Amino acid sequence: MPEIRKGEDLVERIVAAVRKAGLRFEEGDIVVVAQKIVSKAEGAVVRLATVNPSSKAQALAEQLKKDARVVELVLKESRRILRQDRVLIVETHHGFVCANAGIDHSNVPGRDVVTLLPRNPDRSAEALAAGLRKKTGKRIPVIISDTFGRPWRLGLTNVAIGAAGLPVLLDLRGTRDREGKPLAATILAVADELAASAGLLMGKSEGIPVVVIRGYRYRPASEKAAQIIRPALEDLFR
Amino acid sequence: MPEIRKGEDLVERIVAAVRKAGLRFEEGDIVVVAQKIVSKAEGAVVRLATVNPSSKAQALAEQLKKDARVVELVLKESRRILRQDRVLIVETHHGFVCANAGIDHSNVPGRDVVTLLPRNPDRSAEALAAGLRKKTGKRIPVIISDTFGRPWRLGLTNVAIGAAGLPVLLDLRGTRDREGKPLAATILAVADELAASAGLLMGKSEGIPVVVIRGYRYRPASEKAAQIIRPALEDLFR
Repeated sequence: MPEIRKGEDLVERIVAAVRKAGLRFEEGDIVVVAQKIVSKAEGAVVRLATVNPSSKAQALAEQLKKDARVVELVLKESRRILRQDRVLIVETHHGFVCANAGIDHSNVPGRDVVTLLPRNPDRSAEALAAGLRKKTGKRIPVIISDTFGRPWRLGLTNVAIGAAGLPVLLDLRGTRDREGKPLAATILAVADELAASAGLLMGKSEGIPVVVIRGYRYRPASEKAAQIIRPALEDLFR
Repeated sequence: MPEIRKGEDLVERIVAAVRKAGLRFEEGDIVVVAQKIVSKAEGAVVRLATVNPSSKAQALAEQLKKDARVVELVLKESRRILRQDRVLIVETHHGFVCANAGIDHSNVPGRDVVTLLPRNPDRSAEALAAGLRKKTGKRIPVIISDTFGRPWRLGLTNVAIGAAGLPVLLDLRGTRDREGKPLAATILAVADELAASAGLLMGKSEGIPVVVIRGYRYRPASEKAAQIIRPALEDLFR
């Protein structure tokens, strides 16, 4: 895909890239789009030179040895700080718990430019799915993915921060296992597993911000990635 | 796959199942095996009737309204308890942080039988990879997967609890993004993403405990899933 700029028609770009790859959308395909290009198309991009850090951000930046302008943006994008150490683990206004509020400067043109997470990634996914429907005549669910860290295990994995058109949590409670015993606490976060599988192909520096998943069987649904966020009150680690 | 019993030759079973599916192993394939059948083959199965709960387990079980025999097993399999609530979140002797020490009674024949995690899942993966090498003449990496919950997000995802023959963490630090800027904190937990993609096909009650991944490019490596465990001292949430 070429570099995405603010205001660009992502649906157009995705369809063109799929065509260029010699593919054709089929009913049942799922499109996973990297957060980065959604943020760029939506203009969720900030030049650090335009950021005026508050005294709170300056103090925190000094303590953590970070860029005060980035810290200012992290605070602005966050509802609260969960941990402050080498990284700031925050709860964003969306409710995502992640490092630095998802603010990132890789794969953004210019030295001092960062992307923020899309304002409403579920709405972005819905808009993309609606656009793909219009353009292809097919119902193509969309997942917007980002790489998040996690406690207890090293490394980042891709998760779904936005979704439209498919179940995000597959509730197997009430179904029975092979032995006929009811399955207890079995809800699979399939949208995250779909994002993770797409992540294997996206890499990070390879410029593959869109992956088409074909052959995964699902029942169309109008669920949102926001449903994957564990309510803070039920969360034993928040 | 037929029901797996203690002492069964899993390599034999996997090769037979792949052949039955009309496939043939190719160099570069990766085999993901569900923990459950590894535990069964290794005899990591416990009849609850044989468990004699300690007074500590009994007290905890009463408090949490759980089966004291299961609590006894969870305590025995654990190094420490991180949270005790509706579930016991523990650190197992392997170092995994998960609910109920990975003890599970779904898809186990009999009402009062549970599986424990394999004693050493990395060694189990190595043995399977060695067996597949011998039987097929091909170098087939093996991942042993299990479904773990996580803080902040609902639902379980499949992660790698054992691995042999492939990189588990893909360290992109030092590489550069499309703009030529060095990537900062980018280590991808690819073994977990491979386990997650296999998980999409395994479901839970479908009796698909083995998935072959084809077409994922990797450099053979002798890494272990234990390397994915975040050292407790660096862990902000332990």
